[in-house]
Parts: sequence; structure tokens; C-alpha cells
Amino acid sequence: MTEVGTGEALAVDAYGCDAARLRSSEALAAVFDAVVGELVLRPLAPARWHAFPGAGGVTGFLLLAESHLAVHTFPERGFAAFDLYCCRPREPWPWSERLAALLGASRVTVRRLVRGEGDA
Amino acid sequence: MTEVGTGEALAVDAYGCDAARLRSSEALAAVFDAVVGELVLRPLAPARWHAFPGAGGVTGFLLLAESHLAVHTFPERGFAAFDLYCCRPREPWPWSERLAALLGASRVTVRRLVRGEGDA
Repeated sequence: MTEVGTGEALAVDAYGCDAARLRSSEALAAVFDAVVGELVLRPLAPARWHAFPGAGGVTGFLLLAESHLAVHTFPERGFAAFDLYCCRPREPWPWSERLAALLGASRVTVRRLVRGEGDA
Repeated sequence: MTEVGTGEALAVDAYGCDAARLRSSEALAAVFDAVVGELVLRPLAPARWHAFPGAGGVTGFLLLAESHLAVHTFPERGFAAFDLYCCRPREPWPWSERLAALLGASRVTVRRLVRGEGDA
């Protein structure tokens, strides 16, 4: 991977989150704002949100010049899945600390997949 | 993972694609249509497309009842990265065969991440 590589995808799983916040697109938008602001990402359009009915969760998606940020929440399990695809390497972000503060997460795992590193 | 699990994420990397098709949101929309139609997924809104200027690539995103489908293309490398997050297990889809036919891909890798399988 060079600096002009095809990117890395982070799969961030947050457990033990507050169910009410996982049903709130405002609470999740605050996470998006923190990621974008602190990593200096460039949104190409406002985030799109979809709240599933009843006790269901929320899906959110933000197109970035650097690729995309998405979230899917499962309030009944206290679980949220974030995906950040960045076509250029970024500084690490303190996902555990921020998701604990913003969503009440008790445990966060971050997995990183390098994309496009093979040959044609 | 049970059938009501929190899902699986597929990271599909396609190499050796035709550069002109990687700059065409119509060609990429045909891939989205094939994935959605053949896997019987349910879009919640029309797909969003963003074409980067000049020789740049295209980003596309589709919100699904089952979660999301995204693509980022890098025409200068003949590379496309697809992400399909499904909150319920699906049948396997013939990514290599379809992306060869639709985008001219010469090699396709599919990586699968189970999401949310840990405990709080």
C-alpha cells in the first residue's frame, strides 16, 4: 500500500450500547460528526438516515471524498456496526473511547481490511 | 450467528476491470441491479451516485432493508471495491462470474466478516 492506494476498510463493532441512542439518528449523527471532524474527512452530501419502524434500529450513510461512512444499529442487542472506507490512510481514531462516550458502548472491536492490494 | 444475527459484511475486490465501465454509473448500476434482483434485496431508496471529476472513479451507495450495498471504483487501476452488508444470511452470489461479464474483471476476491458475534 502506498499513499495513493485503493484504501482500507474499517469494520467497527460496538457492543453494550444504550438502546435509546441506537434508535436516535441524532445520537448517531453526533458520532458521524465526530469521525468526520476529527479525521478531517470531506462529506460530498448530507448524511442519509433511515429509521426502521417500532423498536427497530437506524441505518445511516455518508458519502465522502475519501469514500464512505455507514452505520447499522440493532437496539435490541445493544449493537452498532460502523464501516469506514477511506481511500487514503488516516490516523487511527479512538473508536472505543468515543463510542463509550457517545453511545454508552461497553466493548468495541475494530477490524481493518486493506482493499485492492492484489494484482490484476 | 443465528438467522436473526447482526449480519455479515462481504468485501469484494475486483481487479482488471474495464476503465470506461468503472467511470460509468450506468454500468455500475447494472451491477447493483443484478445483485439486488438475484439476491432479492429490498432497496429503501434509489441508489446515490457520485462521479469524481476527470479520469476519477465513481462511488455508489444503496440503502437496503437488509443493510447496504456500496461501490468505489479506481479506473486508473482497473479496480472496484464492492461492499455488501446483509443483516440476514443470503445465498452466495457468483461475484467473479458476474463482475467478469458486467465490468470485464479478470480476478475477484470475496472476503466475509461476520459482524456482532461477540458478547457485550
